[in-house]
Amino acid sequence: MFTLVLVRHGESVWNLENRFTGWTDVGLTDKGRQEAKDAARLLKDGGYVFDVCYTSYLRRAIETLHLIQSEMDTLWLPVLKSWRLNERHYGALQGLNKSEMAAQFGEEQVFIWRRSYDTPPPALTEDDPRHPGKDPRYAALPPEELPLTESLKLTVARVLPYWDAELAPAIRAGRRLLVAAHGNSIRALVKHLDQMSDEAIAGLNIPTGVPLVYELDDTLAPIRHFYLGDPEAVAARQAAVAAQGKKG
Amino acid sequence: MFTLVLVRHGESVWNLENRFTGWTDVGLTDKGRQEAKDAARLLKDGGYVFDVCYTSYLRRAIETLHLIQSEMDTLWLPVLKSWRLNERHYGALQGLNKSEMAAQFGEEQVFIWRRSYDTPPPALTEDDPRHPGKDPRYAALPPEELPLTESLKLTVARVLPYWDAELAPAIRAGRRLLVAAHGNSIRALVKHLDQMSDEAIAGLNIPTGVPLVYELDDTLAPIRHFYLGDPEAVAARQAAVAAQGKKG
Repeated sequence: MFTLVLVRHGESVWNLENRFTGWTDVGLTDKGRQEAKDAARLLKDGGYVFDVCYTSYLRRAIETLHLIQSEMDTLWLPVLKSWRLNERHYGALQGLNKSEMAAQFGEEQVFIWRRSYDTPPPALTEDDPRHPGKDPRYAALPPEELPLTESLKLTVARVLPYWDAELAPAIRAGRRLLVAAHGNSIRALVKHLDQMSDEAIAGLNIPTGVPLVYELDDTLAPIRHFYLGDPEAVAARQAAVAAQGKKG
Repeated sequence: MFTLVLVRHGESVWNLENRFTGWTDVGLTDKGRQEAKDAARLLKDGGYVFDVCYTSYLRRAIETLHLIQSEMDTLWLPVLKSWRLNERHYGALQGLNKSEMAAQFGEEQVFIWRRSYDTPPPALTEDDPRHPGKDPRYAALPPEELPLTESLKLTVARVLPYWDAELAPAIRAGRRLLVAAHGNSIRALVKHLDQMSDEAIAGLNIPTGVPLVYELDDTLAPIRHFYLGDPEAVAARQAAVAAQGKKG
């Protein structure tokens, strides 16, 4: 049996401000840092041991992973980073306040952009200062791979090649993986692992800073999965995520 | 021309307590964290750009690197860690207060252990709880590679294979390297680069948290090297390092 642990980063500055973050590189809040430390304590108390860690190119996930490793006294573990584990790219909505969006486009349209499986928000234009090609971290990537907006479907399509090429082979080789990533890149992995329908994954909320443990059989099919920690606290964080974009 | 930057970690808890640290995995002090941030500012102001970062398996170097990357907004850069960049292994002296050692063995003997090129301190025994084979981070290494004590000469002997196999090829491939390491693993690199004598390297003090820039020609021979920042501040930190082990 193989074990894989996924953790969504803790609260970020823009989560707090209720903005569409996507690939914008914002840091954690104090609460987010505490969530990361709490995740570490749950992993330590559960006796979890890792061989290699994975994260995205975004600060809030990298810092979450660093805090977890620091608390678990495993800073020496190898860490591999990939843009393919980034949050969903929210296109032209990035940086906008979710409440302002709701006022301007209506709560229903915002809900569709956030929660439908295959409707991407308006794309960034080539001359937009937020265009990822202007960011040194993505400069070496082929332009055709760089998203200018993404639906959850498009996010799944760019996360899964990383699962196939990097994560799955490492698990099969017996390595115990800790992946610190984002709500939608984790959903992409969960959809694939649990073979969820497009509708089901669009309605699933991943709580921040709670380790999600997958136990996998030899074919990497899930035997079971569960969140670590108090179920009520997990449910409260899921509800908080679901409530985003509905605020006045 | 190639550029390589080396940084010794900032002040650690045991630097402050004046203990032989070696492979003991202690954290930075607040001052050490500030030294790391100051190093980042010097690198940023100097316009330095990196493609890949290297560090040891020890927390004080990993945290120094993380702080530098965080301040430079380059947390997304790949980080490669190796035990070969660790501090010199101080054998049975690890954990002992340098002043106590001086009182017990005499300042001269302590000075020899710290500063002679080829005299290792007493080795750890196999049953010593400090034996590196008992630490999960070194468990996968062949026992014959694990040091139980090291002179500077032995430190050089285990750092240079990493230079040859990893650092030098990466530089030749055009990558700009930032290496966050330790007083003696940096001395090993400096001795090799500048082809210094055993006597000269034993007398060289590497200041904490000050970027040491090497400009290298096509054969990786140094054109010049220099510390970033105020020369008086650099000299003061070198003097502080030299004064360790002499305190009553």
